[in-house]
Amino acid sequence: MESKNKHQLNPRISADCVIFGFDFNQLKVLLIEREPVEGFDVSLSLPGDLIFEDEDLDMAANRILNELTGLYNIFLEQVGAFGNPHRLSKASDQAWLKAVRQKPNERVVTIAYYSLVNMNDYQPQASSFAKTACWVSVHEINELAFDHFEIYQAALKKLKNKIKTQPIGFNLLPEKFTLSQLHRLYEVILGRTLDKRNFRRKMLKLKIVESLDEKQEGVPHKPSQFFKFNELNYNSLIENGFDNFGF
Amino acid sequence: MESKNKHQLNPRISADCVIFGFDFNQLKVLLIEREPVEGFDVSLSLPGDLIFEDEDLDMAANRILNELTGLYNIFLEQVGAFGNPHRLSKASDQAWLKAVRQKPNERVVTIAYYSLVNMNDYQPQASSFAKTACWVSVHEINELAFDHFEIYQAALKKLKNKIKTQPIGFNLLPEKFTLSQLHRLYEVILGRTLDKRNFRRKMLKLKIVESLDEKQEGVPHKPSQFFKFNELNYNSLIENGFDNFGF
Repeated sequence: MESKNKHQLNPRISADCVIFGFDFNQLKVLLIEREPVEGFDVSLSLPGDLIFEDEDLDMAANRILNELTGLYNIFLEQVGAFGNPHRLSKASDQAWLKAVRQKPNERVVTIAYYSLVNMNDYQPQASSFAKTACWVSVHEINELAFDHFEIYQAALKKLKNKIKTQPIGFNLLPEKFTLSQLHRLYEVILGRTLDKRNFRRKMLKLKIVESLDEKQEGVPHKPSQFFKFNELNYNSLIENGFDNFGF
Repeated sequence: MESKNKHQLNPRISADCVIFGFDFNQLKVLLIEREPVEGFDVSLSLPGDLIFEDEDLDMAANRILNELTGLYNIFLEQVGAFGNPHRLSKASDQAWLKAVRQKPNERVVTIAYYSLVNMNDYQPQASSFAKTACWVSVHEINELAFDHFEIYQAALKKLKNKIKTQPIGFNLLPEKFTLSQLHRLYEVILGRTLDKRNFRRKMLKLKIVESLDEKQEGVPHKPSQFFKFNELNYNSLIENGFDNFGF
């Protein structure tokens, strides 16, 4: 039943990882610098590499992330598959592929993954073909190797969507936090301002944050109340059909 | 820089399509029956097949859907990549693959797509290796070939999420519709009851439906008001940061 005149695609498969890092004030992405190739500037790219024969896609993504950056055991979610036939054909990418791959012209379909971590918990260590691995602010990312800029944009869209529907950001804050810190987290990740009063009202009304009998100390402004995340209330909201924060 | 002792994955790539059909009362999925293989019951599966060498993934998905079911020019969105190394190893699937593929043991990574259409606009016509192509109610889907049940579940989750944030359902209703029809559409797709009064209030408050100076005729109950979708208002909501209906 197979078509006789056309060849079936028989590509390599890679995994590319978009690791977002938050540090209370900024959203950054973990990028690597590939070894430079003569005649071309150093290229920044997402950490990514080819998958092995018997590997599961998700596990391969974690192995590759670890090999290139030292990060391990990261909860990765899929962004999707990227398989444009011309995704590797930029001259600088071809030059690099010729230096490191046996068959630089082979088509590669990549499966992209993303995650959000507290940047301060992870000190990247470049290895394998990564010359350096570092956190780069989302405001400074413009050109990346291959189709990695497109992949990064798709991942950012997923992250923004996710933070509107799930309290993933709480993992990035200390156990005790102020509502200003939480508000800042949402603004940084969504990349836009959110009305502060509205934000506070929403969070308090949903009862997923709970005020503690404790205030900031030694701050130059009026000390703010500390809060903690109430996972129990959040879970019962979910069970009752809640599915977004409405911003 | 390539690992020397491990072989890189060099699989085939397929596209599988989860086409949801709505007919005012039910949500169904377009499935095909593969030619039966001796010793095994007929298997239902998603329409899917292998991608050709120079094909773009998205275009391949539409080509394959067309070849197997006759549907064409469908707006497909990606669900994601499914690449479990054992996804083809059920005995019935292996028997079928042996009958139709040159290398039945080759690993296949599949890219899954989904769409939502008005079932009455599409009369599927089975061809290629599909023996039949038909709409099956989501309540009757339990076992499918390969990992297609898992793919179907992931697609349904995406669909539910999408209908909460975008007015995709309006395309499935006639130009003039009643709020009961719209309410029913949301209940059927979300698979749960929604408070009717709340639903009406939300839709009217958002001003994305607009009442017409016209009522149902010849109905055995009190005739309902007709409404139409106000795309202009919806678009300006989107521009102002609206991103979900809150149910």
